[in-house]
Amino acid sequence: MAVKRVKKGATKTPGAGDLPTPSAPGVELDLLDDIVGYRLRRAQVVVYQDYLRTVGSQDIRPSQFAALTIIASNPGLSQTALATTMGIDRSGAVILIDALEDKGLAMRVPSPVDRRTHAIMLTAQGQATLVRLKELVTEHDRRVTAMLSEDERVQLNTLLLRLYQES
Amino acid sequence: MAVKRVKKGATKTPGAGDLPTPSAPGVELDLLDDIVGYRLRRAQVVVYQDYLRTVGSQDIRPSQFAALTIIASNPGLSQTALATTMGIDRSGAVILIDALEDKGLAMRVPSPVDRRTHAIMLTAQGQATLVRLKELVTEHDRRVTAMLSEDERVQLNTLLLRLYQES
Repeated sequence: MAVKRVKKGATKTPGAGDLPTPSAPGVELDLLDDIVGYRLRRAQVVVYQDYLRTVGSQDIRPSQFAALTIIASNPGLSQTALATTMGIDRSGAVILIDALEDKGLAMRVPSPVDRRTHAIMLTAQGQATLVRLKELVTEHDRRVTAMLSEDERVQLNTLLLRLYQES
Repeated sequence: MAVKRVKKGATKTPGAGDLPTPSAPGVELDLLDDIVGYRLRRAQVVVYQDYLRTVGSQDIRPSQFAALTIIASNPGLSQTALATTMGIDRSGAVILIDALEDKGLAMRVPSPVDRRTHAIMLTAQGQATLVRLKELVTEHDRRVTAMLSEDERVQLNTLLLRLYQES
């Protein structure tokens, strides 16, 4: 092709945009700069990478950690209540609990209020594992938000909640 | 373990936590309430679901939309510059550009500054597709943030940027 592009790519200092800096100076983002979804995804990737580094060795996915925490705080809750709380389908909650059962961390027992349903509880191993996980996740979360003041962290948390609670 | 497995598909208990409300009132979230990573993921899921509904028919993933937008605003940029700008590995950028080439939306041309490298550009079809995509994505992004004031949306955007730009 006879396209001669001496413009943007070339006026840059030799490879200014090629430097491995997070911000890639000189590169235009156009409307991406104003798209919350784009920034959410970028932030999510960075946070997840740190999660993997910090908690990855425990072989517990973020959704599994969330489920363990919710079950521990609400022992005996139903699969449907877990699904609703986590914003996932009931079938997704079933898969999640299956995985936690396989790891020996949670168990289904007949519900004391309705024997046709399950109540979910942590096993002793699940409770012990969660203690360690909470330390790691808290450490991880503080690190990925270390550039924010406490007020800003709360502000971010509040705004994020509204995105999914009022949707 | 002598846990009796009652039928998996059994109906739910008539509990408050079982109601299909996003907030699942009465269920304790414990430290999840204070974990930015948890809220990021929840918000991300809701935003992505709306993206699929709005833009899904175009068969363009969010990362592909981001790449198209960046290429359009920086025609001739290198694969490395694209990777850096998007916060992904160079190998990830190669896969991304391959996919856009397969769809006929972008192309690699020899770089005018260094013939050993590629400059990436949109095809005419890519440019036309992007016009439509930008409308859809803007509409989508406004809808998923409709519960925020303009100030709050900017605030959220600013805080999210700091999470990945200063990490």
